[in-house]
Amino acid sequence: MTESSAFRTDRYELTMVDAAIQSGTADRECQFEAFARRLPSGRRYGIVAGTGRLLELIRSFRFEDAELTWLRDNKVVREPTLDWLANYAFRGNIWGYQEGEAYFPGSPLVTVDGSFAECVILETLILSVLNYDSSVASAAARMVSVSLGRPLAEMGSRRTGEYSAVAAARAAYIAGFASTSNLEAGRSWGVPTMGTAAHSFTLLHDSEEDAFRAQVAAFGPATTLLVDTFDVEKGIRLAVDVAGPELGSIRIDSGDLPTVAASARARLDSLGAVNTRITVTSDLDEYSIAALSASPVDAFGVGTSVVTGSGSPAAGMVYKLVAHRDDAGEWVSVAKTSPAKISVGGRKRSVRQLDAAGIARAEVVLIGEDPADAAPPAEPEGRDRVLLVPLVTAGVFDDRYLGTAGTLLARAHHASVMQELPMEAFRLGRGDPVLPTLYR
Amino acid sequence: MTESSAFRTDRYELTMVDAAIQSGTADRECQFEAFARRLPSGRRYGIVAGTGRLLELIRSFRFEDAELTWLRDNKVVREPTLDWLANYAFRGNIWGYQEGEAYFPGSPLVTVDGSFAECVILETLILSVLNYDSSVASAAARMVSVSLGRPLAEMGSRRTGEYSAVAAARAAYIAGFASTSNLEAGRSWGVPTMGTAAHSFTLLHDSEEDAFRAQVAAFGPATTLLVDTFDVEKGIRLAVDVAGPELGSIRIDSGDLPTVAASARARLDSLGAVNTRITVTSDLDEYSIAALSASPVDAFGVGTSVVTGSGSPAAGMVYKLVAHRDDAGEWVSVAKTSPAKISVGGRKRSVRQLDAAGIARAEVVLIGEDPADAAPPAEPEGRDRVLLVPLVTAGVFDDRYLGTAGTLLARAHHASVMQELPMEAFRLGRGDPVLPTLYR
Repeated sequence: MTESSAFRTDRYELTMVDAAIQSGTADRECQFEAFARRLPSGRRYGIVAGTGRLLELIRSFRFEDAELTWLRDNKVVREPTLDWLANYAFRGNIWGYQEGEAYFPGSPLVTVDGSFAECVILETLILSVLNYDSSVASAAARMVSVSLGRPLAEMGSRRTGEYSAVAAARAAYIAGFASTSNLEAGRSWGVPTMGTAAHSFTLLHDSEEDAFRAQVAAFGPATTLLVDTFDVEKGIRLAVDVAGPELGSIRIDSGDLPTVAASARARLDSLGAVNTRITVTSDLDEYSIAALSASPVDAFGVGTSVVTGSGSPAAGMVYKLVAHRDDAGEWVSVAKTSPAKISVGGRKRSVRQLDAAGIARAEVVLIGEDPADAAPPAEPEGRDRVLLVPLVTAGVFDDRYLGTAGTLLARAHHASVMQELPMEAFRLGRGDPVLPTLYR
Repeated sequence: MTESSAFRTDRYELTMVDAAIQSGTADRECQFEAFARRLPSGRRYGIVAGTGRLLELIRSFRFEDAELTWLRDNKVVREPTLDWLANYAFRGNIWGYQEGEAYFPGSPLVTVDGSFAECVILETLILSVLNYDSSVASAAARMVSVSLGRPLAEMGSRRTGEYSAVAAARAAYIAGFASTSNLEAGRSWGVPTMGTAAHSFTLLHDSEEDAFRAQVAAFGPATTLLVDTFDVEKGIRLAVDVAGPELGSIRIDSGDLPTVAASARARLDSLGAVNTRITVTSDLDEYSIAALSASPVDAFGVGTSVVTGSGSPAAGMVYKLVAHRDDAGEWVSVAKTSPAKISVGGRKRSVRQLDAAGIARAEVVLIGEDPADAAPPAEPEGRDRVLLVPLVTAGVFDDRYLGTAGTLLARAHHASVMQELPMEAFRLGRGDPVLPTLYR
């Protein structure tokens, strides 16, 4: 694979461009919108993630010689279209929910303005990134909300594709996780990385004691020792024997965690290791984390469930043409009308309605308005927070949302957004979206 | 991200190498094994995929200056370990189930022989690739088995990470899908690509008729017209009006498909378009495909469910140290013994026991044997098929399993393996693995 993102797409995006160039409609100014018809089953809110990654991928969405040759050889599109692709760079406007923002059914998460051809060709890439990253962030936020302030580490790289692993680490961090095991996420996005040893390190040595001594010799007594290779009780005693009562942390990766954590705490305390922390890492999800709220657990490591969206591995977002200009230059709203998958046409912007206490009460989608329009007058007793921010303006990317700085900004934005949601948002059980979506 | 795959890993793989180098155990010869403790809930078999991709990633698993500098700056490992990493290339042996093979709980899917350090460092990468790709292939195989020979197209790029999309297209193709929408999968792995137009193409035009005319002008009447933007019945009539009765295909993306397909077929026939094929693409999975077995559907497009493993987005494989040589050069079997996650230690090889009719009857795992040992004597009335093949020998990669040729080989191998499974394997309902795993 080359570094160009241009082939991370569906063939039909290119054949549509090809047919539109031939029919003379390729240059019609259009507005596309990414949104979710519904939240994953029973969730109260979703979290947008992937925006910063997406912007970098759109910027590298260029057709180089390698791509053009392949398209020509495989007769995917005709010569005039190859010329158009060779000159492709996105020159339109993109508005979007800030990364880390909460969303609800119908929230206009990303709006893309430009010619039909330059907008449609980004469909697959936009959805791949938003659907995966938002699915992880949406699950991660629920885990954070039940962790009672104890740190969560994302450790699921081995349970998702090797590139998705990097995206997952980043999305979980935006949603409030403290760290990741994934090195590339540390390098590319500034996510703090962590990790010490697996069971194989213990099994490599002639005894558990040899393994613990080797690890403490390498990293000092503040390290985390994995104590459940053979027998947790004996493992803890040995760990404190080897590292002393200043042992930083033990990790437990199996067993009935409420029981095991309680007895581990008692054992550590009885050995004088009163400051040694307990990390648990065994197939955790938001439900098992919540079940540990009264347990003496100091940190959680979460793998499979967070990188697979805890039962909802794709956020269900779609990317639809909602308006185009007619020959007179007027915007015309368009939408599918077949009954099974109806959608709301028209250009849109949206605000979150807050009450006097600053608590969110509704997602208001204003139809037929330009994202750049002024904010509407707020309700008398509250205020409206504008949700769409300009990400790309006439082809110029807003640098604030990119790279490590953009990731930190998203994390900070997410934290402030969560403060604003009504308390019912944090119920784990199945239910309706916590805010109604009002179309105006 | 650089092209090196070395940072697609967990930090603790490197810290283990670091501690093992310091303790003098890094060079102990070890055997690691990737296996699944169980199949995804209720499945009868799993399908191994990702091997060809994995081998290429292991070959590019090198620490370049960019990686070494980051590790030094972030104090992840000490200087002697940086030197070791700088010289890293896998020089050991890898045996594995051939890509496309069926697997069962405990099947030793990949065995990796070499020094502890050179083997442990590949853990995350091996599991990321095998877990994701096998989850897709395992779901895809079930869809193929209920499609009654009608072609399936993988169209889920937008429902998984943008790189995982490529892996998913490849895995589905190995498991018997006919094609993909993903262009990179076409270029990198030779998977046939397909696709024509989305609803946005119809909505771009001033009328459905304009859109159909544009598409037929560009691609000829053999194209596929999407007929459900407004009203399926009117859409079909218009499609045949525009393209003539030689219209290649219509696509339907919504509605109650058995009903819609039947009425679409009747309508097409009444219009003389008796050879026009019907493709359906609306949130299909193995169950909805099976429900269409008596319907006049000619081809299926499958998205979300195949790229997310149809409810099992990670195959649950783990990578464990199963044996190492002691100081006298003898192999010592090792395994965790904590009760919650017990595993079977020891070097292994395995055979599939077939009866006289060539039908698989058991997965036999032979403990304490080298993968290179001769095959055991077969049962009197049947034969034993050896499952592990050499993929890497003393650091030399077997080219047959790489690239487009390797993908085709895996697809052919998969097709032959499916012939061998007992009929009960193809029941969709939940049940036990169709073969018992026998340890000897």
